[in-house]
Amino acid sequence: MTTAWLDRAGPQIPPADGPAMAAASAHLDQLTKPPGSLGGLETIAIRLAGIRGRLVTDIERPAVIVFAADHGVAARGVSAYPSEVTAQMVANFAAGGAAINVLARAAGAGLVVVDIGVAGGNAAAVRTELPGSSSGARLIHARIASGTQDFASGPAMTRDQALAAIETGRVVAADLIEDGADLLAIGEMGIGNTTSASAIVAALTGEPVRAVTGRGTGVDDPGLDRKVAVIDAALALHQLDPEDPIGVLAAVGGFEIAGLVGAILAAATARVPAVLDGFITGAAALVASGLAPNLPDRLLAAHRSLEPGHAIVLDRLGLRPILELDLRLGEGSGAALAIPIIRAAARICGEMATFEQAGVSGSG
Amino acid sequence: MTTAWLDRAGPQIPPADGPAMAAASAHLDQLTKPPGSLGGLETIAIRLAGIRGRLVTDIERPAVIVFAADHGVAARGVSAYPSEVTAQMVANFAAGGAAINVLARAAGAGLVVVDIGVAGGNAAAVRTELPGSSSGARLIHARIASGTQDFASGPAMTRDQALAAIETGRVVAADLIEDGADLLAIGEMGIGNTTSASAIVAALTGEPVRAVTGRGTGVDDPGLDRKVAVIDAALALHQLDPEDPIGVLAAVGGFEIAGLVGAILAAATARVPAVLDGFITGAAALVASGLAPNLPDRLLAAHRSLEPGHAIVLDRLGLRPILELDLRLGEGSGAALAIPIIRAAARICGEMATFEQAGVSGSG
Repeated sequence: MTTAWLDRAGPQIPPADGPAMAAASAHLDQLTKPPGSLGGLETIAIRLAGIRGRLVTDIERPAVIVFAADHGVAARGVSAYPSEVTAQMVANFAAGGAAINVLARAAGAGLVVVDIGVAGGNAAAVRTELPGSSSGARLIHARIASGTQDFASGPAMTRDQALAAIETGRVVAADLIEDGADLLAIGEMGIGNTTSASAIVAALTGEPVRAVTGRGTGVDDPGLDRKVAVIDAALALHQLDPEDPIGVLAAVGGFEIAGLVGAILAAATARVPAVLDGFITGAAALVASGLAPNLPDRLLAAHRSLEPGHAIVLDRLGLRPILELDLRLGEGSGAALAIPIIRAAARICGEMATFEQAGVSGSG
Repeated sequence: MTTAWLDRAGPQIPPADGPAMAAASAHLDQLTKPPGSLGGLETIAIRLAGIRGRLVTDIERPAVIVFAADHGVAARGVSAYPSEVTAQMVANFAAGGAAINVLARAAGAGLVVVDIGVAGGNAAAVRTELPGSSSGARLIHARIASGTQDFASGPAMTRDQALAAIETGRVVAADLIEDGADLLAIGEMGIGNTTSASAIVAALTGEPVRAVTGRGTGVDDPGLDRKVAVIDAALALHQLDPEDPIGVLAAVGGFEIAGLVGAILAAATARVPAVLDGFITGAAALVASGLAPNLPDRLLAAHRSLEPGHAIVLDRLGLRPILELDLRLGEGSGAALAIPIIRAAARICGEMATFEQAGVSGSG
């Protein structure tokens, strides 16, 4: 497995475009409203300009990508749901009945679901089960393996598998961008993956496991204690180096998290805004920012979830969430929900009259 | 001026429909997601059911109403902008170049602007100035007077004028609902109207003027001190009774605020959700809830603005804002921005598959 692309990704992602941001800010101040009065909407518009290198006046072809995979560690009772739910939910995505289907449709966004490592069944079987895929998602079959190994007893995946999953994520995102996507909202599905994300965040930030571990889809108190104990034991076993994000990802990560890393880096390289969903996409962004330090400038955080580690991740990335709706579903649901807000910020730049055009007096 | 309608409005607005809310909650728990995992979106969906008395599965015809009027008190230097800006912005709304035009279009909402008391020019002159009203707003000319009197030296309006403005707001909202509007997002435009709203909120809540008074469109420190002093003096002059909301409205309110009161009460009476914008619509809701104590159950708060009095108003109304984006523009901008989120909450109820339909396992 070559790492040539990854080795180049960091240097290929320059900081935000300062002059484009200044020009966007000046443009916003000429529009018929008190300067700064659209608050966070103006912040988003300026950030879009910094990513794109020009004033962004609409979001015309947003796409949502959901990476799905299973986790060996789920067998340790760290989730409220059994692993089989991952494959069942992939079928639900394809059929159009999940929350992300509804929210992507409502946002006018296309939806691509990538089976990058779901356990059980096989790709063909999953494909024939789908009742109405035309109203659902485009499903891409790209399994690295049928779930990761249990990271409590060994590495979740090999380093080559981690690199292959990152490359898969890169290709999926690059193809969507090639097809005209001008914003990528990213999310995931994988029973057990908050356990994996908490382990990654603890390893990369040095924060105590307890501080970055929450209830995920809803484990009870004994389940939460089990989750913390499993992660603590795994970190003691693997002795991870925070300066080696790929090593951390391979040891305690998941295929869907690796796919997210690749998609985030591909979007940033192409100067297309990537909208992070919740805690797990945040953990992936933390891995990716270890490879490309300028990365966070290219990202938007859709929301802050109830997972306690999410606030820590957003703080490390220096991102302020657009929404605070106590979401904890994943699937890219928060990212899709933020699309209309981001689009509104862009259209403000494209469609509002200036004081001069409208003949409105300025402040005195 | 009869108050018969107003006298009936209170009793006509019953509390939220508890059984409909319980049924919506039970429905949400059958959908393919962990119970409660859509957080604030589920809260909105349950609230919509409580207002409508049934499960709400889409928002198909949202409408934005902006009431515009001028304030005699603006002559005291309490705003960063001169009064003439109110009429200029009404022309801008009609031409389609203001923020609310962009945000209403982005939300798929119709926009109605009501000149309920703008100063200067006349209705005909305003009408002929409009360059492209087809792409802008529908403009309704319904001036009670050309701005209020300066409330620092006497009542802003007579009690009959207050009642007439409330009636105007009621009729505009009722007509929109009659035409099929299934959600009303409400906003305002009026140079000087945060001064009026702060006076109303201080009079109705007993909070110190300083605590409920902010910078509005952006006054500097001396301007803010002037604003507080003007309101303090006016409250000393008028000796208002918090148990008489119409009296408070007439003494220190504005025609657009009275119009908002009427629109809010009309929406609540018709069981159509009313989405409050910022501090000024919040002050109007506080007046309206003095007339109809069950009213807050029928409202949604779009956002929490930077005006310090807004948090106090939302707390009194018991409303949690959907967005926190540091907006301080008014015009209904925050309310329009919240429409896609509210619509998403409704569509979740209408379009998601249940665990049984999708063959997905529940939590174990």
